[in-house]
Amino acid sequence: MPKQESQRILGIDPGSRATGYGVITKNGNRLYYVICGVIRLGDKYSFSDRLKIIFDGLCEVINTHKPTVAAVEDVFVAANPRTALKLGHARGVAVLAALHNGLKVHDYTPRMVKQAVVGYGNADKKQVQQMVRVLLQLSASPSADAADALAVAMCHANQTIIDGEVIIG
Amino acid sequence: MPKQESQRILGIDPGSRATGYGVITKNGNRLYYVICGVIRLGDKYSFSDRLKIIFDGLCEVINTHKPTVAAVEDVFVAANPRTALKLGHARGVAVLAALHNGLKVHDYTPRMVKQAVVGYGNADKKQVQQMVRVLLQLSASPSADAADALAVAMCHANQTIIDGEVIIG
Repeated sequence: MPKQESQRILGIDPGSRATGYGVITKNGNRLYYVICGVIRLGDKYSFSDRLKIIFDGLCEVINTHKPTVAAVEDVFVAANPRTALKLGHARGVAVLAALHNGLKVHDYTPRMVKQAVVGYGNADKKQVQQMVRVLLQLSASPSADAADALAVAMCHANQTIIDGEVIIG
Repeated sequence: MPKQESQRILGIDPGSRATGYGVITKNGNRLYYVICGVIRLGDKYSFSDRLKIIFDGLCEVINTHKPTVAAVEDVFVAANPRTALKLGHARGVAVLAALHNGLKVHDYTPRMVKQAVVGYGNADKKQVQQMVRVLLQLSASPSADAADALAVAMCHANQTIIDGEVIIG
């Protein structure tokens, strides 16, 4: 079997109040957990302050954990255009943080992410958390936003595995 | 009359295909034109490439022309949430470019901008172009997106003029 390059994937689940991030490495067909977390922004921050904190926070994650590629969840398109506009601001700066640091960005819909991790496109948040915990052999479930971010990274890892299933640990 | 500080205002009219920018200075109650232009992005660019080009382009404008404050037009909220989401991405990175360079960002609705520059909140693009040309004593009308950006900057200038009307030139 040919030697496979290792990849370090940053997954991002963007939102204006909570942006989840997670880093995994893929070595051959094996996935390893590196880090995950959530940039949480309460009401004390103005909307534009939040954009800057999301951008700066993700830049720090990238500079610290040195991912080689980014996968960003395509946000749920709300029925309300005003909400979609806000989500767009947050997702725009998240994508930019990756691009600004030289990472190529891949987009995945929530459906693709759930399909890849749970095997079922309509899975709920709890199922995603549970599967992320099991597949990455974590001792506890990450919070929902961090689990979503790890799931996006795992979804991207799946896309680039050619010969067979992901093997964990 | 007390000496008034001069202000250098960057106006931005964000869009994913055309982002207008314009810089003016306000010295006392007088406004002076500095520069304007449009970052135009055709179909050959991917959506994420566009975000990076908007951000990098605006950073270059800021580094070259050293504005002290930014005014960003609040984008028209389309009926279609998918369109609003795209506009949000573009506006998010435009706002971030200003914040990233230490500028405070002020938001103005299209209605406020038209009211400030044309004196009529429902003015059309041609009227805005014409008034921007006259008020800033330009020899020709800027393109619609650049004129909108200058108009946002002028709208911000108006907000900070206390004793009377704007005097031009």
